Amino acid sequence: MPFLQLTAESSSNGMVERDFTVGEVPGVLWSPASGAARAPLVLMGHGGGTHGEHRAMAGHAHPLVTGCGFHVAVIDAPGHGDRPRTAHDEREIAELRKAQAAGAPEGPVVVRYNAGLAELAVPEWRSTLDALRELPEIGADGPVGYVGIGLGTAIGMPLVAVEPRITAAVFGMMWPDALIEKAKRITIPIEFAVQWDNERVPREASLSLFDAFASKEKTLHANVGKHFELARFEADSAVRFLARHLGRAVTSPA
Amino acid sequence: MPFLQLTAESSSNGMVERDFTVGEVPGVLWSPASGAARAPLVLMGHGGGTHGEHRAMAGHAHPLVTGCGFHVAVIDAPGHGDRPRTAHDEREIAELRKAQAAGAPEGPVVVRYNAGLAELAVPEWRSTLDALRELPEIGADGPVGYVGIGLGTAIGMPLVAVEPRITAAVFGMMWPDALIEKAKRITIPIEFAVQWDNERVPREASLSLFDAFASKEKTLHANVGKHFELARFEADSAVRFLARHLGRAVTSPA
Repeated sequence: MPFLQLTAESSSNGMVERDFTVGEVPGVLWSPASGAARAPLVLMGHGGGTHGEHRAMAGHAHPLVTGCGFHVAVIDAPGHGDRPRTAHDEREIAELRKAQAAGAPEGPVVVRYNAGLAELAVPEWRSTLDALRELPEIGADGPVGYVGIGLGTAIGMPLVAVEPRITAAVFGMMWPDALIEKAKRITIPIEFAVQWDNERVPREASLSLFDAFASKEKTLHANVGKHFELARFEADSAVRFLARHLGRAVTSPA
Repeated sequence: MPFLQLTAESSSNGMVERDFTVGEVPGVLWSPASGAARAPLVLMGHGGGTHGEHRAMAGHAHPLVTGCGFHVAVIDAPGHGDRPRTAHDEREIAELRKAQAAGAPEGPVVVRYNAGLAELAVPEWRSTLDALRELPEIGADGPVGYVGIGLGTAIGMPLVAVEPRITAAVFGMMWPDALIEKAKRITIPIEFAVQWDNERVPREASLSLFDAFASKEKTLHANVGKHFELARFEADSAVRFLARHLGRAVTSPA
């Protein structure tokens, strides 16, 4: 089993930030600066493309860590952040750029590429979870949540579908084609973000994916706006949703 | 202009409760027990049927009053609560019971009956608003919000469409037939509740009504459940939405 190697530690803005690797996979763990009491863990999936990397998620982690006292972990997806791109990554990205330049639909390329990334990333996340739960401040039996949109959903849904340790999740903003069958196997509470005027993922496609979850508790939040205009208050809502389901109060306004 | 007559006052659970009438219309105004500082006003529309009456809304008013410091006013809709039923009310209610007993769609009867109630209720709400703004603790220029689902939406949407003093509203759970044209004239921020498995108002009907609002900021919250199973956390969400738009912080957890 790949083990956790802590490679750097710093502290700012109420959070302790620990860089780590699990095998080849780099990530970061943010924890409350206030101390080492055992607390729930939130796994956070970053988005796709050139902005997809673990360090970029500090702003999203902050309200979960300082408002709820959670630990938050992000790892780089294959081909993203500090990880090398394979020849396959390069080919898929070239296909995507070609489709975008031609005004052709991106969906088919993104769906195929992200489904491939998910096959690699799911076992990486499971090893990371194994390793992080060795830390006494996380523990082997504490609650675990997941939050990630876009690529974070393309990877997170297959993960949640097979990973019983995750008990609440926030998803959204991904084509349903490769995910409907995963959704049917997911029964935990879900919050699902939709941009009503999404120019990439059609509204009906998002509604059909939400509909497919087998969860008894699932909430869809749809807001005016395009794909990249997700409202700040939806991030706050995700924090409250995870706080409610992982058994923590939000102690600062979120 | 009908004037405000305060008919009774009591206090409990952190709220001062003042019964009032404006002309023939009975209502209640809940205010923070902590004092008379000027604060925003939320108009609250009750639901339809035998449970529709102003006093039943105390539980819904409570987090707005004690958590945000708002004043909250409810009036009885025509034919509801303390108000007499006309022969027309009795005929429409008999039609509704007949449809329900036959397993026929309720929509056509409710849409027609509630549209008629709205024609009467909109001027009553506007007079009530005029009168309440004479109170120094509300004032002539403070922010005003509206919250009401079911009949509260059937009345609230025509009200908001013509009443520029209302600047944020929470709606949901009503057939769109009589309301689409109203929605097109509404431009204020909206939060809109949908029950994903609503056995009365079809999902597609709710989505089409949400789509019709002209608001630049509108949010749809869809949850698993039937018509009468609206989640408690959606009431909390409505409180936060109104606090954000009427310029108040939520000081107790909501």
